[in-house]
Amino acid sequence: MSDEQQKREERLTDEVVASFDSTPDPRLREIMQSLTRHLHAFVREVRLTDAEWQEAIGFLTETGHITDERRQEFILLSDVLGASMQTVTVNNEAYGSATEATVFGPFFVDGSPLVPQGGDISFGAAGQPCWVEGVVTDTSGNPVPDARIEVWEADDDGFYDVQYGDDRVAARGHLFSGSDGGYRFWALVPRPYPIPHDGPVGRLLAATGRSPLRASHLHFMVTAAGMRTLVTHIFVRGDELLSSDSVFGVRESLVKDFVPQPVGGVTPDGRDLGGREWSRVRFDIVLAPADA
Amino acid sequence: MSDEQQKREERLTDEVVASFDSTPDPRLREIMQSLTRHLHAFVREVRLTDAEWQEAIGFLTETGHITDERRQEFILLSDVLGASMQTVTVNNEAYGSATEATVFGPFFVDGSPLVPQGGDISFGAAGQPCWVEGVVTDTSGNPVPDARIEVWEADDDGFYDVQYGDDRVAARGHLFSGSDGGYRFWALVPRPYPIPHDGPVGRLLAATGRSPLRASHLHFMVTAAGMRTLVTHIFVRGDELLSSDSVFGVRESLVKDFVPQPVGGVTPDGRDLGGREWSRVRFDIVLAPADA
Repeated sequence: MSDEQQKREERLTDEVVASFDSTPDPRLREIMQSLTRHLHAFVREVRLTDAEWQEAIGFLTETGHITDERRQEFILLSDVLGASMQTVTVNNEAYGSATEATVFGPFFVDGSPLVPQGGDISFGAAGQPCWVEGVVTDTSGNPVPDARIEVWEADDDGFYDVQYGDDRVAARGHLFSGSDGGYRFWALVPRPYPIPHDGPVGRLLAATGRSPLRASHLHFMVTAAGMRTLVTHIFVRGDELLSSDSVFGVRESLVKDFVPQPVGGVTPDGRDLGGREWSRVRFDIVLAPADA
Repeated sequence: MSDEQQKREERLTDEVVASFDSTPDPRLREIMQSLTRHLHAFVREVRLTDAEWQEAIGFLTETGHITDERRQEFILLSDVLGASMQTVTVNNEAYGSATEATVFGPFFVDGSPLVPQGGDISFGAAGQPCWVEGVVTDTSGNPVPDARIEVWEADDDGFYDVQYGDDRVAARGHLFSGSDGGYRFWALVPRPYPIPHDGPVGRLLAATGRSPLRASHLHFMVTAAGMRTLVTHIFVRGDELLSSDSVFGVRESLVKDFVPQPVGGVTPDGRDLGGREWSRVRFDIVLAPADA
């Protein structure tokens, strides 16, 4: 590239950056100027062709058109580019023994059913019953009572309730930790499932030789007064997909032992599972302070 | 930031980049890996918050939903971020005396009417008549006959025909250069107009203190056998907006003199303008070779 050409490209970037100089909100100015620099650096680095630019416009358009109240293809795109997980990482800096965060994902919905301690959040969704228990503490080990614990997961067919489009509510719920910080509930042993891959993001994964499968996981969102909100999953030790999770959500500290239990054995709360297989897992949750 | 935190963030970026290692098409691999690096660098540099990430997802979603066959908000977004103009710059490296390119914009449509030399492309659109003439040559000065010259512009109310949504065709057309490379036609003196700003891109401009106005311009797309396709505009010398064009399309070499003519004077082709004001402009077009 000639010096003249390089200068033309740099001048253009500078001109666009300067166009944001009068942005009243300094944070918005910072974001737009950084975005401009990185976007231009990308275009220049790969020498993006007109046809590729057109393809990008078409891809974003299709991503917008497939997105509706039940499907969020832009979140999927952010997820498979690791931008979601990087945002999570930036916003949840390591803090002592606090439980690590991971991606939120597109399938949380407000207004999940409240279940009591020991209740069952599956609400009839297909899957192997799993007893989940643990204690919520702060990083000094003090119990955190009344923490709101939201949990949600896919069923054995790989779908969250909202994906059925029939208004069912299943495999999601919330409960509160007890005065000792303890919590326990019935859920399902998580299974791997693909992120929705019949849209543009699925095509991108196919074109790049990547699998849409997510490592098996159970979602948690834990909120408590004075504590940093924790959005995380637990993963299943031994899952082959731990090293190739399609959204880069796996952290070693979140991989847990889901332990198969003797069929017909005594359940923690005496529930009769009618001879079905079941498992149990322990997940102790450590919350960072809100100002961490 | 702690070393540990920095390493977590870098490891994540490396993991996402590596996920594209098996992309069969090397060009797609290069693009996705570069995009990943720049996107992550942006997120890390600005320390993007969860709320800001959510806002970005919402912004992109709205941009997708307002986009339809007649309105392309993603192109507008690319335009106001200078990404369109940077792509144009990358793909049209300076070549001798070749006419500089600028942005394509979202308002070109295929199938414009053919007009003869000296014909009128306004087709009744409101505006001051303008005689446009010039010659198409290669960079050695040889005439380029039979070059297809597409022209399109907004009317005096600031709208392209396609924005009316009533299938009208006006202020657009195409013609061919003659055996001497010459061309001439009637159009309208371009006036400034805002890019569509009642959507998310308009809100972004307002929030950043930027105007949606484009410097006045007349679009050209010139194609000829063996020549690099030229997509450009001509701008109006003296227009106050030359230094603040909302899509960064202005190049000094494309600013032309639109010269007001004596009312009632003789027109180049003897057309009777019925006492209306009119102007004329000369634009000599120099095409680079296709392999430049």
